[in-house]
Amino acid sequence: MSNRIKVIVSGALGRMGSEAIRTFIEHKDEFELVAGTVRDTSNIDPKLLKNYEEMGVHITDDLTGLVQAAKADVLVELTTPDSVFENSLLALKNGVRPVIGATGLSEEDLKELSLLAKKNQIGAIVAPNFALGAILMMRFAVEASKYYKKAEIIELHHDKKVDMPSGTAIKTAHMMGKSTNKDIPIHSVRLPGLVAKQQVIFGSTGETLTIEHNSIDRSCFMPGITLSARKVVEINQLIYGLENII
Amino acid sequence: MSNRIKVIVSGALGRMGSEAIRTFIEHKDEFELVAGTVRDTSNIDPKLLKNYEEMGVHITDDLTGLVQAAKADVLVELTTPDSVFENSLLALKNGVRPVIGATGLSEEDLKELSLLAKKNQIGAIVAPNFALGAILMMRFAVEASKYYKKAEIIELHHDKKVDMPSGTAIKTAHMMGKSTNKDIPIHSVRLPGLVAKQQVIFGSTGETLTIEHNSIDRSCFMPGITLSARKVVEINQLIYGLENII
Amino acid sequence: MSNRIKVIVSGALGRMGSEAIRTFIEHKDEFELVAGTVRDTSNIDPKLLKNYEEMGVHITDDLTGLVQAAKADVLVELTTPDSVFENSLLALKNGVRPVIGATGLSEEDLKELSLLAKKNQIGAIVAPNFALGAILMMRFAVEASKYYKKAEIIELHHDKKVDMPSGTAIKTAHMMGKSTNKDIPIHSVRLPGLVAKQQVIFGSTGETLTIEHNSIDRSCFMPGITLSARKVVEINQLIYGLENII
Amino acid sequence: MSNRIKVIVSGALGRMGSEAIRTFIEHKDEFELVAGTVRDTSNIDPKLLKNYEEMGVHITDDLTGLVQAAKADVLVELTTPDSVFENSLLALKNGVRPVIGATGLSEEDLKELSLLAKKNQIGAIVAPNFALGAILMMRFAVEASKYYKKAEIIELHHDKKVDMPSGTAIKTAHMMGKSTNKDIPIHSVRLPGLVAKQQVIFGSTGETLTIEHNSIDRSCFMPGITLSARKVVEINQLIYGLENII
Repeated sequence: MSNRIKVIVSGALGRMGSEAIRTFIEHKDEFELVAGTVRDTSNIDPKLLKNYEEMGVHITDDLTGLVQAAKADVLVELTTPDSVFENSLLALKNGVRPVIGATGLSEEDLKELSLLAKKNQIGAIVAPNFALGAILMMRFAVEASKYYKKAEIIELHHDKKVDMPSGTAIKTAHMMGKSTNKDIPIHSVRLPGLVAKQQVIFGSTGETLTIEHNSIDRSCFMPGITLSARKVVEINQLIYGLENII
Repeated sequence: MSNRIKVIVSGALGRMGSEAIRTFIEHKDEFELVAGTVRDTSNIDPKLLKNYEEMGVHITDDLTGLVQAAKADVLVELTTPDSVFENSLLALKNGVRPVIGATGLSEEDLKELSLLAKKNQIGAIVAPNFALGAILMMRFAVEASKYYKKAEIIELHHDKKVDMPSGTAIKTAHMMGKSTNKDIPIHSVRLPGLVAKQQVIFGSTGETLTIEHNSIDRSCFMPGITLSARKVVEINQLIYGLENII
Repeated sequence: MSNRIKVIVSGALGRMGSEAIRTFIEHKDEFELVAGTVRDTSNIDPKLLKNYEEMGVHITDDLTGLVQAAKADVLVELTTPDSVFENSLLALKNGVRPVIGATGLSEEDLKELSLLAKKNQIGAIVAPNFALGAILMMRFAVEASKYYKKAEIIELHHDKKVDMPSGTAIKTAHMMGKSTNKDIPIHSVRLPGLVAKQQVIFGSTGETLTIEHNSIDRSCFMPGITLSARKVVEINQLIYGLENII
Repeated sequence: MSNRIKVIVSGALGRMGSEAIRTFIEHKDEFELVAGTVRDTSNIDPKLLKNYEEMGVHITDDLTGLVQAAKADVLVELTTPDSVFENSLLALKNGVRPVIGATGLSEEDLKELSLLAKKNQIGAIVAPNFALGAILMMRFAVEASKYYKKAEIIELHHDKKVDMPSGTAIKTAHMMGKSTNKDIPIHSVRLPGLVAKQQVIFGSTGETLTIEHNSIDRSCFMPGITLSARKVVEINQLIYGLENII
């Protein structure tokens, strides 16, 4: 199994991260989970760390050391907006390909990461949303926006989500506006009892057309994450959006 | 038929007004339609005015004259926010009971109308929404807000609606907040292809509860309007909200 | 204006028919409304007929006479399932191109009409739904069905709708199944307060994708009807589905 | 802690059961988890059983022995329709109060359990749905059904759910029909990507009112289960429906 893809999961104990850890363990024929990283292990319950060790998962807060040791092919970056750029930069500089799911990257950030990937001839994938249904929703929204003059995006997420609007909503509006020169309003709802839901509503005389994607479980993002981890080692530039690799 | 209720419809050629005209004609056993009023008849197509005259409906822009002539029992006030208060005041001062459907009244306006109604011992009904389903939606929203810590209101209307948020949304949030001390966010969507829709979304761990009312045709408001015109002649104070008369 | 398209509206006093009559009058630069037909004029209020005559619209129950007189280019056929096939056949036999909105045609009926159109080298358009949003809904549903293993259609209509499931739902399921060999369940809801609504729901691990079209007013079908009346005179075969002419 | 409520969880390794196990462990100040039971331990991965033992949870397939040993106050019965009645009967006969969440009990079953509870002067709670939002949905549906002549229930669940329609849907329709003599149609959708969702749609001229409950995670049922386990020891009869204990 020496040609398995070596993966680090950054943000390993977060909601997405722990699901990703589980997923890579399940796909051990394809992937070798090098480690999971967190901001600071001293804040973590030692029992939890021990549990992970028993499962064969090393949890550390030394992302820099790991990345510099060049032991990994891919960094699955699932932290918060305040660290995602820095971590991705660190990876790219050290020859580790980032698969970036956390949102919070500015246009400028993206440009810098893209230039660095190009310069180092190394892959990088940024996906505001790893769910296939979300990709289809965006594709249909872009198509429908050619036929409707007015539309609005409403995105609804759990109340622990820190960024607003969601990366998916921003991207959808951007893609819809690009081909039609429209300005699409986005509204964000934050409530418990939701995971990630988005509606794109189109209105015309006497009718509305609505495209809605509803993720109720982070398991729906895993096929997109493993797909990205497979693809990122085959490319030598930054690709933005899962729709460009499916 | 001398004891029929004499009604003036103010805003007679608007969307709600013209439907109300049609409705009062249909209920001629109960109601006598004195006239419909508009802001300025010189802006109206003479053919349209002639059509109304042929149906026996007098359209005039002299609301003051009509009201002072004391020929009416009830003023059904369906104009825009900039004239609703003034027209209602005029009616109350001249002994004509206003049934007020147009939104756009401030707390202060309501207080003044209420005092005047009390002083003159005359009825007045203010209803942000005349649809029965909307009243039930509000009632359920108030009830559910006792059990959920978080909620949000999304109201969606046709893109010709000038006021925002809708009176119904404001009232729903107010009623929900009164008993629970919560601050309920309201979001307004304006799109063609909608008439009047409102969702109240409650969220708690692992679940959401949504109450949605969707009016697709102004016909749904008419039972509430005729009910109000019947009730307003029997009371001697201002009543706010259809839920207090059903 | 001699080269205007001459149109008969069959089912002229039904919900769709009367809206179509209004629309063709509004587009008199392009269309000449030859007549509206009904099953039996003796059942119609004479005042209503007089009103139509005053607007310049002749209402008759002699569709056969009209069609044989070859005074029309197009028959806009908006009657009920029990007469749509017979009327369309009559039109095609007499060189009048049918634009068929009413559902209720069997596969066999369609085959027969198609053969007749081909034989007579004359156009015919059958559209289970004339709303653009409905066409997009079907297109997206077909696309999404490639990525999801399971889906269901729920169609909701006003309680006066006689056929069930709706033609649009049947067609959507058929198109989705054709490319994927899936069997898509359809559920029909009939309730007052609705006009025509359809949801196509796709489900996969942890996520659902829903495409919903909601027509709240027959005005949304008119652009599709006039478009069809324009196109049907340019073709020499039967075309099924608005999506094949937009 | 000798006065903690002693609980057996039946169906302990199912989706609801394992969540309930977790919940009772979390509430160890109030509850003592005697054991979890399964149909046949020989079908269970020994590692999983060992994990549970390490957490202090005994998993056994001898429900009869446990119950006869009279070591428990409450049986939380979360198995499938084919065993729920038998297990509940066994509990009641041996002085253990059943809290029954699994649906699949017939009217006759309920009557027998109810008589037995009464005879033995022992509590029993049957709840087709333990989510608070579902209880409110039912209450609002009953209230709204007084004002609307027509309604329909659509319930949507994950495709592993074996019973159809859901117990909640059956109960909602029953309660709505009881006070109004209406026959409420129920439609069941089974798709992956859903957990448990129900819509009650009311229609009247020009408007619809929809009440929707959406459970996306079994965690939403836990407050209802612990509440029932607390209440069942205080009553001496069978109570059907969580709404009768909140």
